[in-house]
Parts: sequence; C-alpha cells; structure tokens
Amino acid sequence: MAVDDRSDGNITAQQLAQLGITDPVKVRETIREEKITGPTSGMCPGYAQANLVVLPKEYAYDFLLFTQRNPKSCPVLEVSEEGDRYLRRIAPGADIASEIPKYRIYEKGVLTGEYTNVESFWRKDLVSFLIGCSFSFESELLDAGIEVRHISMGCNVPMYITNIECEPAGIFSGKMVVSMRPIPYEQIVKAVTVTGQMPKVHGTPIHIGDPSVIGIKDVNKPDFGDAVSIMPGEVPVFWCCGVTPQSVVMNVKPSFCITHAPGHMLITDVKNTELKN
Amino acid sequence: MAVDDRSDGNITAQQLAQLGITDPVKVRETIREEKITGPTSGMCPGYAQANLVVLPKEYAYDFLLFTQRNPKSCPVLEVSEEGDRYLRRIAPGADIASEIPKYRIYEKGVLTGEYTNVESFWRKDLVSFLIGCSFSFESELLDAGIEVRHISMGCNVPMYITNIECEPAGIFSGKMVVSMRPIPYEQIVKAVTVTGQMPKVHGTPIHIGDPSVIGIKDVNKPDFGDAVSIMPGEVPVFWCCGVTPQSVVMNVKPSFCITHAPGHMLITDVKNTELKN
Repeated sequence: MAVDDRSDGNITAQQLAQLGITDPVKVRETIREEKITGPTSGMCPGYAQANLVVLPKEYAYDFLLFTQRNPKSCPVLEVSEEGDRYLRRIAPGADIASEIPKYRIYEKGVLTGEYTNVESFWRKDLVSFLIGCSFSFESELLDAGIEVRHISMGCNVPMYITNIECEPAGIFSGKMVVSMRPIPYEQIVKAVTVTGQMPKVHGTPIHIGDPSVIGIKDVNKPDFGDAVSIMPGEVPVFWCCGVTPQSVVMNVKPSFCITHAPGHMLITDVKNTELKN
Repeated sequence: MAVDDRSDGNITAQQLAQLGITDPVKVRETIREEKITGPTSGMCPGYAQANLVVLPKEYAYDFLLFTQRNPKSCPVLEVSEEGDRYLRRIAPGADIASEIPKYRIYEKGVLTGEYTNVESFWRKDLVSFLIGCSFSFESELLDAGIEVRHISMGCNVPMYITNIECEPAGIFSGKMVVSMRPIPYEQIVKAVTVTGQMPKVHGTPIHIGDPSVIGIKDVNKPDFGDAVSIMPGEVPVFWCCGVTPQSVVMNVKPSFCITHAPGHMLITDVKNTELKN
C-alpha cells in the first residue's frame, strides 16, 4: 500500500495529492479499505465522479424512465445488472457496495444509517444507477478561466428546490433541484458553451438571472448546501443538479434505498474530457 | 377535410405538398382516416419523424435499458405510459394505434401481418417506444449543401449489419446496424459537425471510410435498403441506424410486438431544429 494506515480513517484529497496518488483504481482500493471515508471533492483530478442511487428492481423501470424523461437532471452514466455489485462501464470491476467512502440507507424514505460499507445490506434484487455529477463541468469551467465561487470559498455549492416540475414517470415525480454559480456578465456565454459540451453532467444551464422566475424566493437561503457571495456585475446561473433524483426518490419513500452520502461520490475511470460531445 | 377522398387510399407526399398540407396534426388525422397508407418520407418538411417499437410491459425495462446503453443507435424521443395509446410529448394527443400509415405485427419474432390500424390488437400491458430517425439529420445535411445520395437517386438508404456488438441489456443483444451515405472528402468534416448537433437522431457518424473495418464485406450489397453509387472522391460514411432496435427486438422473439412498417413513420410535432443541441 502506498498510502499510510491512518487510525482516524480519513485520508484527504490533499494528502492523496501529496502522496502523488491520482489513479482512480488505487483510490477506490483505498476507499474499500476504509482509509478514505470523507468527501471525494478534489480526488483524482480530471476523472468524473458519480452520484449513486440503488433501488430494488420493482422500482427500477419507473426510475429509469424518470431519468429518460429528465436527462438534464438525471444524466445516467451506468445502470448495473440486477443484483450485481460490480460495475462494468465507468469503473470496470468496481464494487458498488464498498468503493464509495460513505453511504446512506433509507427505509420507507427515512434515513436509517450512514455506513462506509454496505456489503451486508446487499440484496439480489438491487439495481444501481450511477448519475453524472457537476464536479466534471466545474473543472472545465475552471480550465476556461471561470471562477467557481463555492470552490474559491471552500464551501458546498448552493442548491435550491425550484417551481419547475420534473416530467413524472410512474411513481416518480417532484420539483427540479438546481445548483447556482455566480458568473460575471462577460463570462456567461462561455459558461453556457463550456457546460453545453457536457450533456452527461447536466449540460447547459436551466436558467440565467432572476431567481424568482424559477420559484427561488431568496438566493441567499439555499435549500441545500451553502450560500455564496454574488458580487456586483455577476449573475446567478442555475444548472440542473444531481440532488434531483435523490430528492424525487425520497418523495416516493421506497421500501429500501441506498445512496452515496452527499459529497462522498464514486470516482470513475472516465476522464471528464470523455464526457464531452 | 381538405384532402380528397381517394379510393386507392394513398395520398402521397407530393400530393400533400400540392394541397399545401404541411401541418403534422392535419396529416396524422388524414393518416388516421386511412387516406395516407404509404411511406411518410417528404411529408411535413421540417418536422421530425419517429420509429415505433411497441412491446408488452414485461420486456419494457430491458428494452429501455438497452436504449440507455446504446443511445446512438436508439435515441428515445418518448416512452408512453403502460397501456396508453396516446402520446404526450412529441405529438400530444396522437393515437399510436392509428396515426401511423402502416404497422407490422410480430408474434414470437414472426411477422404475422401488416395493418393500417392496430386498435383491435391493443392491450393494456403495451408500452410504446418512439425512437429518433435519420430523416431529421438528412434535411440538415441538405440544408448544409451536402448531397444525400439515396435521396438524389430516389431509393432507400443502404443499411448494413456490422461486426459491432451493441451493449447488451437483459434479454436484448445484437449487432449494430448502420446506414451509409457517400460524402465528398471536402464535406466530411461538415457532415460530422452537422449531424453531431443532433444526438437525438443518431448524432455523429460511427465510422468513416473502409467498410471492412466494421465488418462490411461489400458496400455494394447492403443487408437492407438499396445500394447507392459511390463516386470518385467520395468516402462512405456510416451512421447508427434506427433499424438496430427493431433488429435486436426480432432476435429476442418477444411474444408480441408492433412496429411501424419500414418508411411508414410517425410524423411528430417536433421541429428538426428542436432536436439540435
């Protein structure tokens, strides 16, 4: 093992970088060994990270149809075989039940626990959905010279429940959740074109400007995450958010559901550049 | 009725154009009245047309997953509610069972009949999949000044079974079927960028040049459709083809399946330009 065996069980992104460990396979191995149990932001720069929703098969058709009807909110990167814990496409061989630093388990919509490993909860009827994450387009925004405010501020992205109804599918329905990044007027067009090249990670913004148009009463009071400063000459720009599918699933209160814990993502073998059109 | 009541039951695209009928709702109404029973090519210029696959619900999850894993071959425009004959998105209110000029019914993979109306065969467990069609990008190619050879020749596009395996999903698997259009060297880049703007109708080519690389032995002997001339200075360019999902479904021999008859498509209310990124 190239990483040290820390007793506090949390090697950070900074420490990984200092150790020169940037290979997703190696980092997932370290996660499986529970030496990384914290947020994955900043780990394996250049590689896409993914949101996780695991549902019993009885819900899988409706949920897959929901993702088909709401591709900007729910860009599916991979769907596992029923009961199969191992991925085949975005992280071949990765164990869904152990290679994410932290999981949440919900029963009938109620959070019943957080775990660093969910092998003991695995069932033969579970289907895993891996959904694209805005981390990928944020690194492209930074590369394009566009500041990403919550990264500069070292906090979580602000997220809001809008008045926009998702296209319902079977038992799944709900409002769209969006994330917001303040962008200077002169960089808005660039921000649209850069993110538009990446439809597998939410793509173009869903709204630019006045938050009230999409039902956001106070942009300084996000429903999830942290508020960020909007400077003079900057416009709030809103993108579809990977919290939408989780929020919609929770509305439905399925008998059983596993998700990643917020910020504790699956690190894939897919480079961000491969997600471009 | 603005269209004449022809006894031979086949108003052509040319006749529709002469009558100045270009509204999809009006044309679908005429189709429902069985006054149009022929191919839809050239009808309602500027509007997208769609392929149809109708399957019992028991097959729907695997098929939807197949389309998710093979988006270039199977770009889904709409999935109906189970048992619902009426569309809601790409042609709101359109009756799937009567507003396509000709249908095919397959039982256990065997073609059991062609019909101009399938209302009497409808069942409460049927799910309809409407899949994007290359007609949409062909009109964009023409607009961009790129000749589409099979249109110039007045024949069907040549289609080939390749050696490329689709990503399997549940019971569905099979080889990718492609269509071919010869493009002059100096227009290949333009053909890639024009079609790349339309991922909902197969998007960029899957292969450019030597047909043998993708398992095509003789480009002059297509597996479906008609051979077209390839002139000196032209390169065969291959796109994913909407025949793939039908071909894959036939491999599986489902107990029951309805499709459109080749060339007899659903005319949608969606403009081709709306299918652009």
